[in-house]
Amino acid sequence: MLANIPRLKDFIAKNNLDAVIATCPENVTYLSGFWAMSQWVRRGPQAYVLFPRETAQPCIIANSGILDLIPDQQPWIREVRRYGYFQIDVDSSATLDAGDVLQQQLFGSTAYKDSVDALVTAMKEKGLTRGTVGIDEMGITPQCMEQLTAALPDVKFVRCFSLFERVRSVKTPGEIEILQKAARITERAIDAALNIAAEGVTEREMLRAFNASLAHDDAAPVVGCIGFGNRSAMINVQPSDRKLKRGDLIRFDVGGRYRNYRSDMSRGASLGEPAPKIAKYYRAVEKGVLRGYDIIKPGLKVSELFKEIVATVQKEGIPHFARSHVGHGIGVDGYDPPNISESSTDVLEENMVICVETPYYELGFAGLQVEDMVRVTNNGAASLMSLPTALRIL
Amino acid sequence: MLANIPRLKDFIAKNNLDAVIATCPENVTYLSGFWAMSQWVRRGPQAYVLFPRETAQPCIIANSGILDLIPDQQPWIREVRRYGYFQIDVDSSATLDAGDVLQQQLFGSTAYKDSVDALVTAMKEKGLTRGTVGIDEMGITPQCMEQLTAALPDVKFVRCFSLFERVRSVKTPGEIEILQKAARITERAIDAALNIAAEGVTEREMLRAFNASLAHDDAAPVVGCIGFGNRSAMINVQPSDRKLKRGDLIRFDVGGRYRNYRSDMSRGASLGEPAPKIAKYYRAVEKGVLRGYDIIKPGLKVSELFKEIVATVQKEGIPHFARSHVGHGIGVDGYDPPNISESSTDVLEENMVICVETPYYELGFAGLQVEDMVRVTNNGAASLMSLPTALRIL
Repeated sequence: MLANIPRLKDFIAKNNLDAVIATCPENVTYLSGFWAMSQWVRRGPQAYVLFPRETAQPCIIANSGILDLIPDQQPWIREVRRYGYFQIDVDSSATLDAGDVLQQQLFGSTAYKDSVDALVTAMKEKGLTRGTVGIDEMGITPQCMEQLTAALPDVKFVRCFSLFERVRSVKTPGEIEILQKAARITERAIDAALNIAAEGVTEREMLRAFNASLAHDDAAPVVGCIGFGNRSAMINVQPSDRKLKRGDLIRFDVGGRYRNYRSDMSRGASLGEPAPKIAKYYRAVEKGVLRGYDIIKPGLKVSELFKEIVATVQKEGIPHFARSHVGHGIGVDGYDPPNISESSTDVLEENMVICVETPYYELGFAGLQVEDMVRVTNNGAASLMSLPTALRIL
Repeated sequence: MLANIPRLKDFIAKNNLDAVIATCPENVTYLSGFWAMSQWVRRGPQAYVLFPRETAQPCIIANSGILDLIPDQQPWIREVRRYGYFQIDVDSSATLDAGDVLQQQLFGSTAYKDSVDALVTAMKEKGLTRGTVGIDEMGITPQCMEQLTAALPDVKFVRCFSLFERVRSVKTPGEIEILQKAARITERAIDAALNIAAEGVTEREMLRAFNASLAHDDAAPVVGCIGFGNRSAMINVQPSDRKLKRGDLIRFDVGGRYRNYRSDMSRGASLGEPAPKIAKYYRAVEKGVLRGYDIIKPGLKVSELFKEIVATVQKEGIPHFARSHVGHGIGVDGYDPPNISESSTDVLEENMVICVETPYYELGFAGLQVEDMVRVTNNGAASLMSLPTALRIL
């Protein structure tokens, strides 16, 4: 189970909702455990999860063409409604295994005309024909939303993408385990990339080594910013044919996707001894992240965390250091709440998993960045990292 | 240039629009050439391209945090408006290179409050304060859409995601070149996966080999369905620890992303001699695709193509063969128009690039599939493939 169901129920109750409906890929997978492939790989396909407040069972709504994924994934939500035509045949001479039997059952169920038809039927059968229903506005198309509101005129629909985000911000044990593995896999990929570092190696070659390592560990590349020298100052530097030179700073801001969960981390390395300014500035941004480790605990105001980290970087060597944010939650999407900014009104909670980062970008010079994935525990910060934070000298 | 600008202008004129606005990742990248990273890797970030009908210049709207991507990518649309705060510094002692100079200029421009503020300002300055404007409804959030319509009450906004899809369906030379490379890279990855085929090798190990090959060729994995034996009958089979056995059919339905463009193809292989039914059925689905090659040309009704292909598979060995569709366009997204179905009213046009596929899924037996990427030319079908269509016997 990925979803934090007690927290979801609490938010549903506090917002006086009768049900919530997940519609975007991240929320559908988070809530049900079902990776509704078509919505992850193309623009437009619809999949939903209906989660009623009361005793009625939750329900997955998916197009017929992805039902085959149910047996392998075994989502905890067992009720599945399908829509649309998709042809499969059955070998009548074969003894089907359990997965194929389940597939056959699913394909034997009613095929609704379209996604909204299936959703409306489910809502009616579960007594959701009036009241207030939260709908994740980030996955349903405007056309489907119009069709839904027209079919259920007595239901008041309110947007609830941000409710899902807030539920997601406190991780379950299952999520923490995946995030921990995602972090370790990404660290190994950084190591693999740095293992080929030598004069003349290009940014692109290093990305290839990074991505090959992810592939070996069953993770997919998502963010692969690797920049050398002055290119490291580009915020989202996309690897080019720039060759590595002695004295270059190498900045990684990288992350992948593992079992649908994201990683996001940053480290720096130097080919040979770094220039004094690089060493000094890197140490300053590193100290900022380390200051985060000192003070992170449940109850800490996120705005305080922001101020302490920024002040530390300023004090430790970059007096003009300024940032919009110094981190963010991470989970099934790359940015979960909280956003670690001065204006945040959030407070850290136990089992938030956050990225703490203090990037500094100076055009004509370099980009220096340390970013760690950190879990908030009742004993303070628990790192998901194993790589040292210090500038690695190659 | 990726976008088919003459076709876009033609569609804008026919629909009596004064401008169109791209908002989803695929359309923003397609229209401008700008890969607005944040919207590709997270749910929510907004980026737009405003394209006026008349002489006014088109314009990219992006958050400040991705402006660094502009110098490397050099989108053909030069006007860029940014929104939001992002801190970068400049080494005043350094001589900036051309890319850094451009970055500095971009960061020196006005930062609008938010994405809609930037878009509305651009529209006003370009005289778009009344009339009819097409907006791609698949990338803009409902909140931003409300803000936009409130700010420009005299503009009639009409949805135009499907207009973009129809423009995209006829490829430019630049797109064809990328799609050709994407196809070749994916074929190499299939070869790499089949190179490790042996008794005891798992589906997952084969996927790792496939993905590692993509990484080596600068492509990212997107669809990696690889199934053995009866698992090959699962439509979207996700690789498991199932071990390869002699006589197993191996089905690949795979694709990646290369320079933001997609590949999608399918092949089958057999470890040792296939059972007669596998050989017969595979040959039937293969003949269906080959029939497509015979008749594809500009002007052919897509519904005719569907009927011919289905009838061929039926005649060649699977009399009960039935399908919702036997292919689709492909480009910056996995499915572009046309959808090759019986109900389609589309007609093939020169330089459409389509996937032609005849998958057959039989639970308890196997899944047999041939899928080719094909360009429509005035001389008929031009394959983007080099792998033979025949069942490969290992």
